[in-house]
Formats: sequence, structure tokens, C-alpha cells
Amino acid sequence: MVFSGIIPPLTTPFASDGSVSLTDLKHNIQQYNRTDLAGYVVLGSTGESVLLTNAEREKIFVAAKEAGAEEKKLIAGTGAESTVETIERTKRAAELGYDAALVKTPHYYKPAYKPEVLIAHYRRVADASPIPLLLYSVPQFTGIALEPPEIAALAEHPNIMGIKDSSGNVQRVAETIATVPEAFQVLVGSASTVYPCLAIGARGAILALACALPEKCATLFELFRQGQHEKARELQSVLVRASKLIVSEGGIAGVKFVMDQRGYRGGIPRLPLEPLSNEQKTRISDFLAHLEPATARA
Amino acid sequence: MVFSGIIPPLTTPFASDGSVSLTDLKHNIQQYNRTDLAGYVVLGSTGESVLLTNAEREKIFVAAKEAGAEEKKLIAGTGAESTVETIERTKRAAELGYDAALVKTPHYYKPAYKPEVLIAHYRRVADASPIPLLLYSVPQFTGIALEPPEIAALAEHPNIMGIKDSSGNVQRVAETIATVPEAFQVLVGSASTVYPCLAIGARGAILALACALPEKCATLFELFRQGQHEKARELQSVLVRASKLIVSEGGIAGVKFVMDQRGYRGGIPRLPLEPLSNEQKTRISDFLAHLEPATARA
Amino acid sequence: MVFSGIIPPLTTPFASDGSVSLTDLKHNIQQYNRTDLAGYVVLGSTGESVLLTNAEREKIFVAAKEAGAEEKKLIAGTGAESTVETIERTKRAAELGYDAALVKTPHYYKPAYKPEVLIAHYRRVADASPIPLLLYSVPQFTGIALEPPEIAALAEHPNIMGIKDSSGNVQRVAETIATVPEAFQVLVGSASTVYPCLAIGARGAILALACALPEKCATLFELFRQGQHEKARELQSVLVRASKLIVSEGGIAGVKFVMDQRGYRGGIPRLPLEPLSNEQKTRISDFLAHLEPATARA
Amino acid sequence: MVFSGIIPPLTTPFASDGSVSLTDLKHNIQQYNRTDLAGYVVLGSTGESVLLTNAEREKIFVAAKEAGAEEKKLIAGTGAESTVETIERTKRAAELGYDAALVKTPHYYKPAYKPEVLIAHYRRVADASPIPLLLYSVPQFTGIALEPPEIAALAEHPNIMGIKDSSGNVQRVAETIATVPEAFQVLVGSASTVYPCLAIGARGAILALACALPEKCATLFELFRQGQHEKARELQSVLVRASKLIVSEGGIAGVKFVMDQRGYRGGIPRLPLEPLSNEQKTRISDFLAHLEPATARA
Repeated sequence: MVFSGIIPPLTTPFASDGSVSLTDLKHNIQQYNRTDLAGYVVLGSTGESVLLTNAEREKIFVAAKEAGAEEKKLIAGTGAESTVETIERTKRAAELGYDAALVKTPHYYKPAYKPEVLIAHYRRVADASPIPLLLYSVPQFTGIALEPPEIAALAEHPNIMGIKDSSGNVQRVAETIATVPEAFQVLVGSASTVYPCLAIGARGAILALACALPEKCATLFELFRQGQHEKARELQSVLVRASKLIVSEGGIAGVKFVMDQRGYRGGIPRLPLEPLSNEQKTRISDFLAHLEPATARA
Repeated sequence: MVFSGIIPPLTTPFASDGSVSLTDLKHNIQQYNRTDLAGYVVLGSTGESVLLTNAEREKIFVAAKEAGAEEKKLIAGTGAESTVETIERTKRAAELGYDAALVKTPHYYKPAYKPEVLIAHYRRVADASPIPLLLYSVPQFTGIALEPPEIAALAEHPNIMGIKDSSGNVQRVAETIATVPEAFQVLVGSASTVYPCLAIGARGAILALACALPEKCATLFELFRQGQHEKARELQSVLVRASKLIVSEGGIAGVKFVMDQRGYRGGIPRLPLEPLSNEQKTRISDFLAHLEPATARA
Repeated sequence: MVFSGIIPPLTTPFASDGSVSLTDLKHNIQQYNRTDLAGYVVLGSTGESVLLTNAEREKIFVAAKEAGAEEKKLIAGTGAESTVETIERTKRAAELGYDAALVKTPHYYKPAYKPEVLIAHYRRVADASPIPLLLYSVPQFTGIALEPPEIAALAEHPNIMGIKDSSGNVQRVAETIATVPEAFQVLVGSASTVYPCLAIGARGAILALACALPEKCATLFELFRQGQHEKARELQSVLVRASKLIVSEGGIAGVKFVMDQRGYRGGIPRLPLEPLSNEQKTRISDFLAHLEPATARA
Repeated sequence: MVFSGIIPPLTTPFASDGSVSLTDLKHNIQQYNRTDLAGYVVLGSTGESVLLTNAEREKIFVAAKEAGAEEKKLIAGTGAESTVETIERTKRAAELGYDAALVKTPHYYKPAYKPEVLIAHYRRVADASPIPLLLYSVPQFTGIALEPPEIAALAEHPNIMGIKDSSGNVQRVAETIATVPEAFQVLVGSASTVYPCLAIGARGAILALACALPEKCATLFELFRQGQHEKARELQSVLVRASKLIVSEGGIAGVKFVMDQRGYRGGIPRLPLEPLSNEQKTRISDFLAHLEPATARA
């Protein structure tokens, strides 16, 4: 199984009473089904998975599976702090027909999570999982980065097929690609560095920005695939600014706000995450207003 | 209500099948009831709370309340990532008769958790809680530190009575104490710096080391209280070495190993946390063998 | 030789044309000679040594030696990036009659300066030096901290008599003291944590704040020496606020501004260091205006 | 003036008595004159400038100017901690006929070097300099990174023509390029990420690795220039491994060791920098032995 192209980590829409809105979730997926996105991550970091209950997570897994188009890859975010719970979530995703599981590093007991402990954790999960795993390194949230030596060790496991590296650290991505076997798939998670990462061998990207601006992100991938490097560079430059403003500064609230402007159902995040300030909304709206002419060339 | 003295954050014992052993938990509490410890934290970081299920957490709250002696303060660890879930856990602890709730910072979405977001989160929890709150800052696990300005802002809330600062950063503790009202209680969470923190005005400490060496920790507090500064300094020096070896290097597995050596039921932690290596066990056992003569003077 | 008590790292006064003013330097030293300060560091970090030429450093070494009172210890800051240059500066300080040399870690090539490299550097300097060395760890400026294992290794050298640890990290100070021989003298460099560090066994402190508020700093040491812990705690609380405002926020410009207010010749620092803004001056002046009543009790 | 292509920051060779060997320096430059390197940086970080005396720096500036071929650009490293000294060094380089000055950030007083202080420093130097400046951000050595907002502010100065960003942070490079005017030249300083940085708009690179492997580095640039992206990607992958082993792990000693193997005069660095261990030498030699077949394709 090959994971290539651009994949959004779906946001979780909430109804006005604070409950998860499966209707809005399905609406969004049906919209995305019409784009060139390669698949979906369900219950990743952008999906506010750590703010949801077990019951909510179950309902979302089921609903996303129902709504996703046949040809879109489905990846379940199943990483929990405990090894046993990670395995349980992964098995459930397999039962529901997900193609792969995206497993973030455990992270609370940082001083204890030395490389060999992380390796043992991932091997246990991979041994028990009916579906292939993607490692998930997201140090901006977890404070823990998977480094090339442990990635290379885990790449030898037949049920670990790749990694999503969200660090935005291109040097680490380059060293990883120089270290792992050709078949091991490196996806990246930072919209600011997608094109340079593709240029050095990443297969694709899982991008929060792709929830908000799916066509732009998919176009960047397509330009790269066709070898149109100059146009890719220009579009990447636009996405650098978009990513900084919408994702880095706005966070999940920023992504959801842009979704609301563009025909998706974003809404506001769950507390303690706060909605955007009016000042932030204005800055993002101004940026969006200038986006079309700027990228029409692409 | 005054929280003073030394309080252990209880470990969670597991049976050989991996389930929580309430029998062992109660055994430990009954042993601690006979010491000079001032109370217990139930389901703190050392209690592996992030590795437990909701059902396990409920059982542990109930069992610890049953086993704790009348005169010991009972503090419930209730911090979850979501504000709503934190409030629910806190209300449940109140129903069960806990004296206070220890609420760690949410931490996953670090870039979004600016000081004003953390302040709003704590105010919402404090408004809703039937029992007083202790803030809980533990940056070595969460990557987020509460700083004096936000602590001072929160100290004005009538239902926020104090903080456990586990950073081990004495300068921050000193600045906090210089900033908050006299009635706001500063507890610390690092055994290496208990005595200097008491010297500058901390009221007590919540120490993982106190699970393993309760008498030593309680004695240090008593020496300080009596103004025996030279003896306190000597005992602190012993605890610096103990804390480094048992807590910093051994982690929860280290604390549990020492408990096993000293009449408590420690056992091993839940995966992904690994048990100590034999080499670590030997080093700790050697240290313990030399501990008594060294501190008999105290 | 024992280094105990409070020692200021002398500032370097500049004339209006930007040249070093030896007249003002001597004036300041003569003023300090009348206080209970234990000695002087000449050409430390607060002395802007990295902003001076070789010729300026030579003149300052000579002038400070001439002006310092007989009973005050004289410590020369001699650390340079190169081992050979550090040895040359140290030998020159010895010729001029300095009592000891304070040698900061080399720091530019951080990735190369592994513990064994730093140990080898210090051993070479200590072997060649006619006067005893104080190690100097100041990670807030250098990005490199000496840790207890390497300090303990260096403490075995007969010509290395102690350390100035300016990290403000009381846990590291505690671990250092628990590790080194009794004769090895640990001085600290952060006014915010002087009293707790004395309480756990530090011998004294080299404090930028002591350039600005020498009596307050000397009084804190004296209160500790007499076992007046409660008064020491109160005065420490005042110095926490003073240190934050004057040293942490104001830097060398802040120290010099307060000196100007209190009969010393501070002036402005050399570029690229900028003078205080008017807003900073007002805040510091307000603090100073309230300082006397607050500490009159002490 | 356009700085494009690959430029090595020349190493400083030492004679067996520890003095600078101008003969060896000129030998190296004459060898490099025959390659496709675009020019030379004289007295950069790799040139051990912080370990040299003023007299040594003067001699090196003169000798390198004499030996450099007409068509090679000559850039002088002139950044000192003090603004005045930076200006003096820059003026001297201009007198000697250097094309531009590479000015690293002052860095010792980190807490004081806020963006506006760095901006004021660079403006003063640029105002006074007869030759154009390249900003130089090298946080792995200085602990200070120039960020896009201050780079953009400085890019408006008519005498500041570009930046060498050695952070290896491609996201920052991308944000910088998206922010500055087209004419502002962004060079990078990390061999691991040269190709991805060229792909997003960097003009060239100043690479320590280019002292050791000048042809490989120049070939990578040429492949990029010709749009041979697949071959560039392959060669970049080789240079990722080379850079990690030789530059990241070996440091200046590693670069000099490889120079010795390849007809240049490397020698050993000045203390406190230590020569390579035998184990390091073996690993690098093994790598070099396999280098040729691997890159012959390129």
C-alpha cells in the first residue's frame, strides 16, 4: 500500500451544545471526496482527539468510514499513552476497515521514554495490529521527536510502513530518508516545507492546512509530480504564508475558521482551545481575499 | 484548609495480569497512615493516571478514600486535557469527599496554550468545582510551566488555594512566593530542592520520593520546622542523591522498586513504562544499603 | 584561601568619548572598599570583558589592583575562547597579584565542547596557572553548563579551588555540593537564589546586583551567617524582586543605572548593549524609592 | 553583486608550533582556485576566527586576498561582539579589497540582544561599512537566530545585501525568502539541506563541507542549476551522510582531517578544540573509501 499525495487530518465539528456533529463531519468528507486529496486521517492531532471521550472517538471512526469515498485512503489516529490502549484502538480501526493506523509517540513520561522504550512500544503495537502502522512524530505537541536511528530500527518491522514526521525539520527528514529502506514511506506534516521535502524524497504530506485549502495543497503536489519546479516553488511560497497565519498562529481554531469561509463546516474548537479573536479573523480574511489572484498563476 | 508537610503522590499497583490491584493500594495506604505524612495525592503523575482507563480511575478514587486515615488530607488528581472532562473528574472527587483537586495544566496543544488560555481554563474549573483547587505545573512531563504572572492572576480566585510547582526551579518558586498573597499555598514537587524551598517560604511538598522513603522526607520537614537548619541541610544532601538515583533516573519504576524493598507493594509500571534493568536495581540497592547509617544522625 | 561572602563583578565605566574611565573605576572601588563586600571580580561578564580590547583589559587589571583595599579578595576574569589565550591572561593576572582567576567555559563551538573537552581545557589552564582557578559556568550567556560529574572530576585538581555557578539552578548547585569534596568552594551567581543556596552549603556569591546594592547583598549574607533565617528569608524576597527588575530585565544597563542613583559611577554600556529606555528607568526608580522602608526591618 | 554557487569558509592551518601557517593557507586557496567554487569566506566560524589573535587575523586577511583567484568572490568574516570592533574589522577588509563582509550576530549577552538591539547593531555597521554586508545567523554556535521579521527590516538597508542562514532550519529559510525583496540574497550554511533550500529560492551556500569535498558540493549546485532534480536529490542524499559524519560529528577537526586525505593541508585545530579520535578517523576514512563509486553517477 502506497501513501502518496496530500491527506488532511480531519477536524472534528461540534454542534452548538458542544457535542460532536457527525452530520457536519460527513458533510466535510463528502466535500473533500470531490477533491484530489489522497485520503483522510481520522482522529489525528487536528481532530482534537485528546479532547474527546472514548464514545465520541468510536462514533467518529464509524462515521468517517461511512462517508469516505472508495478511492480515498483511510488512516486512523490510534496513539494513546498506554501501549494496551493503543493496541485496542488500533484493532478497532482495523475492524472498521481502516487502511492503516497513525500512532503518535507516547509522551507524558518524557524522561522515561528513551529511544529503546519507544522502539519497544512501537514493536508491541505493530506485532498486535492487523493493519500497517505509520509512526507519528510531532514534537511541537509531544515534546518528543523520533530520530533517524530509532526510525531506521523500526523500519525493519514488516508491519511498520512509514512515518509522518511533523517536526518541520527538513534536515531530520533528509537524514531519515538517507537511512531507511526505499520502501519505507516518509510523509511530512508541515505545510511550510512540503515542496522541499518532496524534492528530497518524501512521498506525501498530512497537512492541517489541507483541511482549509485542499485544492492549493493538492495542486502543489501535482506540480511537483509533473516536474514543474518553478511553479511549485511559487505556490510553496504562498503556502508558507498561509501556513504561518492559519496553522501556526491560528491553530485548530484558525483551520476551522477558514473552513467556515470556504464551504466546509469548521465551527469552534473544544475548550480549553479558544476561538480566534476578531483581530485574528480579520488578518486571515484579508489574506484569503488576496489568495486567489496570487495563486491563479499556479 | 492548610496543606503543609510532606505528601506522597500514591503509586498505582498492578496485579500480575496487568489489572489495578486495589488490595495492594489499600495495603500501602494503611502503611503510610502510620507515618508522619500529611496526606495523599491520588492519581497524580506518579500514579500513572495517564495510563489508566476511566473505570480504573473511579475505582482508585473510591478505594483510596476508604483506606486513608481520618487525619490525612486527600487530594485528587483531576486534570484532563479537556476543560469539561477536568470539571467532571473534579466534581466526582468532591462527591467522594476529597479535600482538594490537583489540576495539571492541559498541555497537548502547546503553541495554543498561551497564559491567557491557561488562566481561562483554570477559572472555569475553579468556578465549577465544589472543592478548592491546587494548580499543578510539571514542565518535565507537560512541556508547560506556569509562571509567576499567571499564578498571581489565578491566586485571586477564591477557589484556587495554592500550587504544586514540580519544576524544581527554585528561582521561579521564589518569584512566585514574592508575588502571591500570603494565604496562597506554594507546595513543591522536587525532592532535590525541598529544604531550600521551605527556607524561602514553601509550605510543604508533594514528593514521589515520599512513596519510597516516607520517613526520611517527613523528617526533613520536621527538622526544618524546628529550625534545625544544619541537620536539615545534611539530610537534604542525602535526599538529593536519593532523588537523583531513584526518581530522576529510575522514574516510577525506581520508586516502585524501592517500595518493594521496604514493605510496600510497588510492582512494575504499566507499558510503555519499562521495569528497571538489573544494573539499575543493583545501583539503587547499594544506595539503600548505605542509607541508614548516613541518615541515622538525622 | 577561602572565598566566602558577597563579591561584586565590577562594571566597566566608560567616559563620554567611549573610552574606559579608570578614574571612575577607581572611584567605585574606593566606595566599595568601605562596605562589607568580600572582594571583587575584575573583568567578569558584568564587566563587559567581551566588549573590550586587550589593551583596555590590561589597564583595568592594573587599575583595579591598585584601588582594591588590602583585605578584599581580588579575582581576575581570564577566560577566553582559546586555551592558550586563557593561560596568558591568567599568568598576567598572577603577575599583577590577583588572588585567583575566574575562568568561564569556552563556548563558541558548542557541539564540540563535550564534557571531556571542557575538562581537558580546564586541566591545561590549571596546570599552567600560578594562581588557583575558579570554574565559571554561566549558561544564560554561553549556552554551556558545567554539570556535577565534570565539576567533580575537576575538583580533584589541586589548583582548581571552586566554581561560580551562575545558572540559578539550585538543584544543580545541590547536586554539585553533594558530589564534590568539602574543600571545594561553591559560589553562586544569581541574586534570586542566594539565600537558598547558602542554606544548602554554598560559601558565597558573586552578584551583579552587589554592584548596585552592595549593602543589601552583604546584609543577606550576614543574616544567614548569624542563623537569622526568618530575616534572611524576608530580605531574600526583596532581592528576588530587585534582581528580576534590575539584573534580569535591565541587564548591565540596569545595574549601571542603579549605580548612578546611589553614588557610584555607572554610565552606559558599550554598544551593541543599549542604555535603558525611559520606561525602564522609571520602573526601577519607583522600585528603589520603595526599597528602604521595605528593608529597613532587615 | 551576486553571490551564487558554493563558497567554502576557509579553514586556518596551523604549523607544528601552533602558529598560523600562511603557506598552507595559500596552498589550499591555490587548489580551490582550480575548482568551480564561487569564492571564499575568510575568517568565518570554520576558520576558527574566535581562537585567533588580532595579529593573526590581519595576516590571514592579507594572505587570502593575495592567493584568491581574480574571479572568486572574497568575503571577510568581520563580526565581533562589540559594534565598534566589528566596524573596524569591516573597514580593514574593505581596504584590503574584500567584496563583502559576513557579520555574525553578537551573542554573549543573549538576554539583552532583543531583535531591536540586533537591528540597531547591524544598521550601525552597515552605515559605516564601505562594502556590502551579509548578515550571519548561526544559532548552533551563538544561541541566537535572526528571524524573518528582523531580517526583513534589515533587508531594507541599501548596504545589507543578504544573509547566510546556517541554522539548517528550512522553514525559517522559506519564511525569510517569502518575506524579503527579490534582490536580497539568501545563502544557507548547512550541507544537509542545500538542495531543498536551493529549490525554494536560496541563491547559494557557504559550506564547511565544501572545504573538504569542494567538487561534490559544486556539482550539487550545478545539477540544480541545470534542472536535473533527480540527480541533485541523489547527490544531496550522499552529502547528508557526509555532512553528518564529517561536519556535525567531526566538527572543524573532521573537516581538516578530510582535507588532509584529499590533497589539502588541514592539520589539527587549535585548543580547546581537540583532534579526531582514531575511531572517528576510521569511520570517516571508511565513508570516503565508499564515496567515489556512490557519486560517480552524479
